[in-house]
Amino acid sequence: MGGDHAPRAPIAGALLALAELPAQHHIQLIGRSAPVTAELDALLSDEFAAYAPHRSRISIVDAPDVIEMTDKPTVALRGKQQSSMVIGLRRVVEGLADGFISAGNTGAQMAASTVLLKLHPGLTRPAIGTIFPTARQPVLMLDAGANVDCSAEELVQFARIGDVYARHLLGRTSPAVGLLSIGEEAEKGNAVVKEAHQLLRKADLNFIGNIEGRDIPNGECEGSPLDVIVCDGFVGNVLLKFYESVAPMLIGMVARSAGLDADTVTRSLKHLDVDEYGGAPLLGVRGVSIISHGSSSPRALKNAIRMAVTASESGMNEEIGRRLSAAASHTA
Amino acid sequence: MGGDHAPRAPIAGALLALAELPAQHHIQLIGRSAPVTAELDALLSDEFAAYAPHRSRISIVDAPDVIEMTDKPTVALRGKQQSSMVIGLRRVVEGLADGFISAGNTGAQMAASTVLLKLHPGLTRPAIGTIFPTARQPVLMLDAGANVDCSAEELVQFARIGDVYARHLLGRTSPAVGLLSIGEEAEKGNAVVKEAHQLLRKADLNFIGNIEGRDIPNGECEGSPLDVIVCDGFVGNVLLKFYESVAPMLIGMVARSAGLDADTVTRSLKHLDVDEYGGAPLLGVRGVSIISHGSSSPRALKNAIRMAVTASESGMNEEIGRRLSAAASHTA
Repeated sequence: MGGDHAPRAPIAGALLALAELPAQHHIQLIGRSAPVTAELDALLSDEFAAYAPHRSRISIVDAPDVIEMTDKPTVALRGKQQSSMVIGLRRVVEGLADGFISAGNTGAQMAASTVLLKLHPGLTRPAIGTIFPTARQPVLMLDAGANVDCSAEELVQFARIGDVYARHLLGRTSPAVGLLSIGEEAEKGNAVVKEAHQLLRKADLNFIGNIEGRDIPNGECEGSPLDVIVCDGFVGNVLLKFYESVAPMLIGMVARSAGLDADTVTRSLKHLDVDEYGGAPLLGVRGVSIISHGSSSPRALKNAIRMAVTASESGMNEEIGRRLSAAASHTA
Repeated sequence: MGGDHAPRAPIAGALLALAELPAQHHIQLIGRSAPVTAELDALLSDEFAAYAPHRSRISIVDAPDVIEMTDKPTVALRGKQQSSMVIGLRRVVEGLADGFISAGNTGAQMAASTVLLKLHPGLTRPAIGTIFPTARQPVLMLDAGANVDCSAEELVQFARIGDVYARHLLGRTSPAVGLLSIGEEAEKGNAVVKEAHQLLRKADLNFIGNIEGRDIPNGECEGSPLDVIVCDGFVGNVLLKFYESVAPMLIGMVARSAGLDADTVTRSLKHLDVDEYGGAPLLGVRGVSIISHGSSSPRALKNAIRMAVTASESGMNEEIGRRLSAAASHTA
């Protein structure tokens, strides 16, 4: 029920995903069963008629409550126990689902995931990992907004989590982890970043040192590819929203000045396709919870579903748990 | 002597500026007099021959020491008292110059400006104001890197300084001041930003509330134009360097995909012309000190010189001093 184009976009995304995924995968559509069933039937009898063979791989789970985008997360969770958010995540906890994807209220998804899936020991909050398209390979940045006042230890935890993510979901061997700062030298940065730099040098990670804002769009630092960018959720959120807004602004300007159609130009830039990943995994929780943009297209949601499958099958979350407890026992 | 293209770019910039400025303006070129004189003569006998009538408006002040880009600021200041940085700023203090412009070592310029020009009462450090091109009007962001761990009170000082700058140098009446955060609501942000929000609501400013990363490229927040963005120097520096790097990356991608020449496209985008302002004023010091990029072109340095003239003639620094002491006595 969540997102700007619900229930149509999630249902269409599910159909697209089933067509790509092996036959053993099934999708549960969680929401008010009447409108969900009606929309599914409408799609299958029209635009998605070719997807009818996949209908048997879909089940509909009724969730009468709907969390609105404007609902306060904690209030929504307490008052709307029969929402798709709560019911869906409960199914993950109960082993009835391997992952949960939503384009709904992000705050509510974070809160519900934390409460229901629970965090790996040693974490105080989950982190949002987001993929930045770059001139080179896509780069994972975390945290993108879940943690605004971070300690140096939390930044190190983000680095460990990001390392596992980059291996499991991006296929990077020995991911290069950079700490976002305002200069390359170890003594550059704010107090927390300077302390984190020292801790990261001693951590069992491929830590390449500080990186700067200019390195992100290039996806590299001094010629070496970058895989993971570590920053607090305040900086990460500002940067993410800036990037999401500056790209269409610049592309629109260039297109207009060259007499081209901005949408055509955008589609031609595969590098910058924000639908390619479709979602940001909530990292640090003991289960798969993928946060998609409220404005997600069916294709973006299809890719978010594929991300959930990969995350589940790769055992990423279990590995994150192992890495965090190994680090904790090492430093204890 | 500072910058990647010294002494050629600063001298060429000075000639370009003199041709545009009224006859009463003079420029002092401060550096090693032999190479500076040789370069000036070379330019005037060749590419800049048409500028020969302005030669009489230029004087050369010998500064035998040269601060390198890699020099530590404080070490450079102590050890290189005969550098162009120290001699130039001393001339401002002594009333022999109305402003100082450099494309040299930024850290040294900040330190020398703070020590020699001194700060307005109540400030602990100067701030760097930088102009962001947007889809609408240019927007001032401060601090862009001078202050990494800021208090809420310092953010409010940046807002006051930015308000004066936007009036005097950008010609805005009642500048709209936004506080960079991760959500529009007053309760969104890190601890310092949340406290600053409350202080700014009570300040004598046109405070429009929190803005988000996405509002910057558009130069507006909810449809209203934005004039000043307040943030700490860590976030500001990351954003500035990100913007400086993402714009050519995206423009290059679009140009390639459309079979256009990236340089031609960039030149056609007047909105995004980084040379248009040419420098970032160091704000909060009692005198005009303009920081230019090391890579500045002659045209960028010409515009930095014009900025210094406007800053000096508008009495911006005196007004910043008045506003800060009025606020201090109001809250005392």
